Amino acid sequence: MKNCIVAQSGGPTSVINASAIGVLEENNTSHYYDNVYAGINGIQGILNNHIVNLSTLPYDEVKGLKYTPSSGLGSCRYKLKSYEENPEDYLNLFKLLEEHEIKTFFYIGGNDSQDTVHKFSIYANKHNKDVKFIGIPKTIDNDLPIMDHTPGFGSAAKLIATSVLENFLDASVYPAKGVFILETMGRDTGWLAASACIATINGKPAADFIYLPEVVFDIDKFLKDVSKKLTEKNHIFVVVSEGVKTKDGKFLGETCATSFDKFGHAQLGGICAYLKNLILETNTAEKVRVLELSTIQRCSMHCASQTDIDEAFEVGKAAVTYSIDGISGNMIGIRRLSNSPYTAEPFALETSKVANNIKYFPLEWINKEGNNVTQEAYEYTLPLIMGEPKFSIENGLPKYTFLEGAFNI
Amino acid sequence: MKNCIVAQSGGPTSVINASAIGVLEENNTSHYYDNVYAGINGIQGILNNHIVNLSTLPYDEVKGLKYTPSSGLGSCRYKLKSYEENPEDYLNLFKLLEEHEIKTFFYIGGNDSQDTVHKFSIYANKHNKDVKFIGIPKTIDNDLPIMDHTPGFGSAAKLIATSVLENFLDASVYPAKGVFILETMGRDTGWLAASACIATINGKPAADFIYLPEVVFDIDKFLKDVSKKLTEKNHIFVVVSEGVKTKDGKFLGETCATSFDKFGHAQLGGICAYLKNLILETNTAEKVRVLELSTIQRCSMHCASQTDIDEAFEVGKAAVTYSIDGISGNMIGIRRLSNSPYTAEPFALETSKVANNIKYFPLEWINKEGNNVTQEAYEYTLPLIMGEPKFSIENGLPKYTFLEGAFNI
Repeated sequence: MKNCIVAQSGGPTSVINASAIGVLEENNTSHYYDNVYAGINGIQGILNNHIVNLSTLPYDEVKGLKYTPSSGLGSCRYKLKSYEENPEDYLNLFKLLEEHEIKTFFYIGGNDSQDTVHKFSIYANKHNKDVKFIGIPKTIDNDLPIMDHTPGFGSAAKLIATSVLENFLDASVYPAKGVFILETMGRDTGWLAASACIATINGKPAADFIYLPEVVFDIDKFLKDVSKKLTEKNHIFVVVSEGVKTKDGKFLGETCATSFDKFGHAQLGGICAYLKNLILETNTAEKVRVLELSTIQRCSMHCASQTDIDEAFEVGKAAVTYSIDGISGNMIGIRRLSNSPYTAEPFALETSKVANNIKYFPLEWINKEGNNVTQEAYEYTLPLIMGEPKFSIENGLPKYTFLEGAFNI
Repeated sequence: MKNCIVAQSGGPTSVINASAIGVLEENNTSHYYDNVYAGINGIQGILNNHIVNLSTLPYDEVKGLKYTPSSGLGSCRYKLKSYEENPEDYLNLFKLLEEHEIKTFFYIGGNDSQDTVHKFSIYANKHNKDVKFIGIPKTIDNDLPIMDHTPGFGSAAKLIATSVLENFLDASVYPAKGVFILETMGRDTGWLAASACIATINGKPAADFIYLPEVVFDIDKFLKDVSKKLTEKNHIFVVVSEGVKTKDGKFLGETCATSFDKFGHAQLGGICAYLKNLILETNTAEKVRVLELSTIQRCSMHCASQTDIDEAFEVGKAAVTYSIDGISGNMIGIRRLSNSPYTAEPFALETSKVANNIKYFPLEWINKEGNNVTQEAYEYTLPLIMGEPKFSIENGLPKYTFLEGAFNI
């Protein structure tokens, strides 16, 4: 008996389930594994023996996950310690894997999850355990190094660009001068905020300013930008990343933060409200509207990119293929082959090069003023948002799959 | 020469432009008016002679507005005073209308706009002016009396229900107990918040609680609701209207309000953040996520209801037909003829019955606990969200029309 397990970790995306279904579909073709298990709630659930056999569930039902946003297998935020610090997790995991005759562990996640893959594969190798660990990338943040882009980013970028376009129109209706501030996610990098550049109308960008974490955020400069632009036009549109930092290296949003995640990261957000008050208090403008896109950036399958869905599905499939080749401690990346027409392919890279590393938005794609992005950003992002998602509709809403029975809600 | 003018007022919706295009299309068929003018930025712009001849613009370009959200002719928030208080507006308007040989004024808007239609039509009648005034309804709030529902509501309801569904999935991924609070618009009435009831998954409603302005919001009861539900399930989903009021009749959001509109209404919002802090401070739950849908409720054409677009278009057309019949001081309503299959038709009603009146969410559609809605609400709302919008796509985003040249931006 040769089984595999797939699990999801970290923040959800619109397309993370497409990768899980990619694993299932590829195995339905190759029949390499006898059973595909799902670890419910990632490594945290697996360590509690929360394991479900996906191969015994009706495939017609399960495959609906391909067009369902969020982590259909549940997720966790669990920072795996080193073996020396916490041997129990390692001993416990390998005991469970052995019991289930699991030979390959597919872990879909971002930086922290790839660190988990890395640590387990090192341990397996050192202790001659016959289990392979393969990472499948996922993050709307697009901040995993080496690979061209991450599954999840294209759909988030499409939602952001669509929202910028629609809110630009909404913000332009009154004769009075006004400022609209839209806040995107992106703790460390500006990829998400920069994707606002895709929104153009009558050939001109909808966003007047895009502020990224890669550039020090100077409050005085921001107010000058806004003030100057208001002498040129009545309505100005600002996009700001939740991750912008002031010159002392602190998140602008830290003062607004009310909670922290398990890794001690401040839950950011609320910057747009802060900037609104700043503009009003300094009399820079009289009317300011703000929008914090928040979670809709990562779960709006109704506005996902079909290119993104297809690629998420393909990296899931490729993970199975690579596992048959016998690799371990690797993650499946995406390599862009050509931009026009857009083509890309999956490839394997070592998780050691991914884990806890960050791919920043290129400084050379930021304008001299540090308040917008260049044509290169537009050309890079555009192919990733293409295509409308092919989900089913039921009662006027997307029909989503929720494997409620698989885990307690 | 016999011309007409169409203008938009108040907060935008996803389908307000479809009504303007309905006016144009009906006149393209009947050729009753020689020219269709647009008043840019509503009555405020018209009084400043900001008038554009739509009939001379390329129709292939203009008709793109049908699938463009927000007020493509600009909007205003302008409370027309009585003739006795401010005769200038009346004299000025009729002088301009005469200059442009305008015989009918179509005004697309909500309660305040219908009040404007009412006042001008009374004046015209009293002073034997040969100008008719016809209102075309528009409001996502669905709070205009007499008519079954308002154009704009169905699309907002669809966006809300879709967001509830997607964020329900997003909020269910972690094993830890958590509360998700989604805040909708709806200053006076609960129609928007109630539309969350459409979101169901595996046959069950996604929202555990829906709080409407029609029921006094009791903070202790709210905390008890949440606390009790958390003993039954791990993740609970709360929908709350920005318009909920405490027993002293004050908006719960008034303490969070930082600005007021021109009519002195507090700009609400921020209730979800307030309730989050309340839950955390009282240790009712450890993890709370919030989402304030804000403007995306009224401008998300990418998630609009085709039924809503069609009806907005039809009331625009009907306004022209009724104007040919010679009515004035009327608004075009929508009458539901049958629910299954859903059929509806436009009809004319007196603006005096609409202006400054409010249609509340029916108390008999609210459950006994006052924290959710009944099956009647579901059946009422469902037909209004049906159908996917048929907009064009360009570069991965909806292709919208922006008549930039028609007004200064």
